[in-house]
Amino acid sequence: MIIDDPAVKAEVAAAFAAYEAALVGNDVPTLEALFHDDARTIRYGGGENLYGMDAIRTFRRARSPEGLARDLRDTVITTYGRDTGIAMTLFTRSGAPGRIGRQSQTWIRFPDGWKVVAAHVSVIDG
Amino acid sequence: MIIDDPAVKAEVAAAFAAYEAALVGNDVPTLEALFHDDARTIRYGGGENLYGMDAIRTFRRARSPEGLARDLRDTVITTYGRDTGIAMTLFTRSGAPGRIGRQSQTWIRFPDGWKVVAAHVSVIDG
Repeated sequence: MIIDDPAVKAEVAAAFAAYEAALVGNDVPTLEALFHDDARTIRYGGGENLYGMDAIRTFRRARSPEGLARDLRDTVITTYGRDTGIAMTLFTRSGAPGRIGRQSQTWIRFPDGWKVVAAHVSVIDG
Repeated sequence: MIIDDPAVKAEVAAAFAAYEAALVGNDVPTLEALFHDDARTIRYGGGENLYGMDAIRTFRRARSPEGLARDLRDTVITTYGRDTGIAMTLFTRSGAPGRIGRQSQTWIRFPDGWKVVAAHVSVIDG
């Protein structure tokens, strides 16, 4: 198994960047399209635990579009083989000084592209 | 790609169970052996962000062995293909009433067995 094959890593990096742009722009259709539409997809969010794409969709569609802008740092994308990628990043928001967000995603390659199958977002004191 | 192939899922479930036993028993050598010994392994913990196995080892070896017991619930293990597994679980501790922990792990099959390459632990109000 090749770790960080350049071509695979570039694909996951592009998917990650598309997700980030959709997140700060509150582009809900794109956010939904980048998650695997399946009952086994899980997202632990800042204050909620969402099991299955139906729960994830309901949450996203009710979310406030305010205060989404954020700065990323210490972002690391690592790929394992041709079909699995991990994206880990810290983030800060100007509205939450002294707090550090952490976002982890596992991306899997499906016939229709790379999709997040598991995500976890949390915030701690910096 | 087969999702949740029974044989693959059983392997990841066994690795997850071994990790959990080591965690509550503070069996540090086993905990370390079940993480991929690599600078690209990342663990976001309850209050720390650990990049690379050296940082993870330093943290574990300094950790207090007290109050580690916990109860798991809503544990879901899902495998994608033959070499990738996701383990998501909530947990509670008797010493932290009203708080819900979330643990996510991505497991990859290496020649020497299944290893965690990315983990994220956080606690929110329940």
